[in-house]
Amino acid sequence: MNDRFARRMLEVRASEIRELLKHTQSPEMISFAGGLPAPELFPVAEMREVASRVLQAEGCKALQYSTTEGHALLRATIAGRTNHTWGTRLTPDDILITTGSQQGLDLIGKLFLDEGDEVLCESPTYIGAITAWRVFRPRWIEVPTDDEGMIPDELERHLAGAPHPRFIYVIPNFQNPSGRTWSLERRKAVVGIARRWDTAIVEDNPYGEVRFEGETLPSLQSIDVSGNTISLGTFSKIFCPGLRLGWIAAERPYLEKLIILKQGADLHTSTLDQMLAAGWLESYDSASHIRKITSTYRSRRDAMVAALEREMPEGVTFTRPEGGLFLWVRFPRQVNARVLLARCLECRVAFVPGGAFFPNGGNENTARLNFSCMPEERIRDGIARMAVALRQVLREAQESQVREIAPV
Amino acid sequence: MNDRFARRMLEVRASEIRELLKHTQSPEMISFAGGLPAPELFPVAEMREVASRVLQAEGCKALQYSTTEGHALLRATIAGRTNHTWGTRLTPDDILITTGSQQGLDLIGKLFLDEGDEVLCESPTYIGAITAWRVFRPRWIEVPTDDEGMIPDELERHLAGAPHPRFIYVIPNFQNPSGRTWSLERRKAVVGIARRWDTAIVEDNPYGEVRFEGETLPSLQSIDVSGNTISLGTFSKIFCPGLRLGWIAAERPYLEKLIILKQGADLHTSTLDQMLAAGWLESYDSASHIRKITSTYRSRRDAMVAALEREMPEGVTFTRPEGGLFLWVRFPRQVNARVLLARCLECRVAFVPGGAFFPNGGNENTARLNFSCMPEERIRDGIARMAVALRQVLREAQESQVREIAPV
Repeated sequence: MNDRFARRMLEVRASEIRELLKHTQSPEMISFAGGLPAPELFPVAEMREVASRVLQAEGCKALQYSTTEGHALLRATIAGRTNHTWGTRLTPDDILITTGSQQGLDLIGKLFLDEGDEVLCESPTYIGAITAWRVFRPRWIEVPTDDEGMIPDELERHLAGAPHPRFIYVIPNFQNPSGRTWSLERRKAVVGIARRWDTAIVEDNPYGEVRFEGETLPSLQSIDVSGNTISLGTFSKIFCPGLRLGWIAAERPYLEKLIILKQGADLHTSTLDQMLAAGWLESYDSASHIRKITSTYRSRRDAMVAALEREMPEGVTFTRPEGGLFLWVRFPRQVNARVLLARCLECRVAFVPGGAFFPNGGNENTARLNFSCMPEERIRDGIARMAVALRQVLREAQESQVREIAPV
Repeated sequence: MNDRFARRMLEVRASEIRELLKHTQSPEMISFAGGLPAPELFPVAEMREVASRVLQAEGCKALQYSTTEGHALLRATIAGRTNHTWGTRLTPDDILITTGSQQGLDLIGKLFLDEGDEVLCESPTYIGAITAWRVFRPRWIEVPTDDEGMIPDELERHLAGAPHPRFIYVIPNFQNPSGRTWSLERRKAVVGIARRWDTAIVEDNPYGEVRFEGETLPSLQSIDVSGNTISLGTFSKIFCPGLRLGWIAAERPYLEKLIILKQGADLHTSTLDQMLAAGWLESYDSASHIRKITSTYRSRRDAMVAALEREMPEGVTFTRPEGGLFLWVRFPRQVNARVLLARCLECRVAFVPGGAFFPNGGNENTARLNFSCMPEERIRDGIARMAVALRQVLREAQESQVREIAPV
């Protein structure tokens, strides 16, 4: 049947991990796998009030087709908030509302990528970007990262080997999956290198406002005065992901083309959902709401870090994120996290094996753990169960090694 | 700057017509241009009640991420309604909820189209499909149509010249832009031909339920027992377009791949909007709502047809649709509808020149008129103004012809 389809479909297959995790929705499962915000923090009563008000005052407008660019008030609010928090100089005209920031990734892929084109990214990088761009069949160039972010010398070295990449894709704040945040020096260095090589930057910032401690650092878009950084934002982590509301912020030569692509992709994002978000942002205190979220997630991160320190055997390392939803674990080399996951599922714990975040494969001894949507007690319980499973996997690996060394 | 982008962007440019019509939103404009449903018929009060109920009973669920496939109850409702109306045998598992049926078109393009692949379509065809698929750079093969639909002999002839098209794209009910409806014989004939040539059919049915008179005919998907017809549906014309809710109905080999593509495109469609639609369909009488819509649109079609008969000069022909939102006008050969539009905008009437609906160009003496969103008096007034402008354009064409013939 495959010759009925486009060539790109050869690379498009159901994620093995997604299939494994399909069965993790049962209430007794402790899941560190998803990227779900904590639903108990959603402003449900406020949204009910806003929905009633919007439908009463502007019901016909809220249920009708609207412009591809997006709701004017929402675009203005996003430009204002972004400038205030990240030091950018955006106008409402620089904002395109997207159906979640996942759609932003799809549109970026359509704009830039022909088959075989090079994309530079952090190693590891966001799995949703891999999924979105795989259909355009790019060549992935993974740039090594450390605790301060993408390593400038490595970026320069990789650019020398691939001098015409379409863009550099980065998540500088509380990266998914690693949880790491770039230092100010790294931000400046990477922007400087991108300018010297005349390469666009795609800056994805879904978690930036979910900061537990330390100081907010300027975005790459605010540092890059050339106008060649395109940024992606979303309300999914600070408001309600179910509404599928994200945005792209870029200068007009990029944005005009992205608007045309969005028109072909879904005409526009839900008018009602845009008006609900604009209405909520206008009437309620989003800063106080975000403080509630960060305070809850901070305690959960603390619980997970403490449990990992207490429970994990020697040789396991992990990051201590200053914000966001995820931390990153590296197991001893002989551990395959897919095998560990199978074992963990038996004792009702789930996570995402880290190999999935490397577009060129490898690194199977890593894992991404989400700490945002489980209460602290279940986090402690889940990490303890993981540690038991890990010790068992380590023991088995040692035994099979002994068998291999022993004479037959 | 163009070498920064993917090759497909060479063909992607802002629609000239969209630019022309940008300035048609003023209240004194009589617009036959858009494809807007009449907002005064939206069930605003009912939606307000449903929103309040859904957010009270299941607020956390409605605002959280959900599955790519879509809301279970909504998928089941769509399968049931489609089977009941169109004679199909769908299960809820055959339905993928999309962000409007425009996204269905984008996903179909991603699934099937490599550069240069052939797409067979009606001539004229839906402009949104042209926009969605242009980025995949197919070769468009326009199959001639008449008042009964796509002409089987012509389809067969074109297949002989392009024996491996990816699919045949059709809109058998109240087609956009022509307003035509296929006869039962044509439906059977085209399915038969597609089966002999082993070609998939993509059946777009946004207007099918908006029937003013006559009998509902079975869908191509219900006639095609081979499972190779993929259908697209939407709530935009019978409910609320602003919610961006459509669906794809297809057998699993197609649907499984489309689900993976949708995951990369926007993860899933707004959870809240899906639950609002499911809630409304469960609690309210959609059949009675659709009767209200069809009754209003029928009167508006009658008003437009009568005005065209009364006002238009000899040599102008037009269709008399049995349903939907549009009718199709053919002017005398010497009239360029883009020139006529410029003239009409001066006297505050807008429409879409028909050339935009032919992917390979030509047919500039045609126009699509929307009759769904203007009251009858304004329809009569608008057509009268159009006729005045047309007479002027005809006079000028004649004069310039005389000048050309006359000795210099």
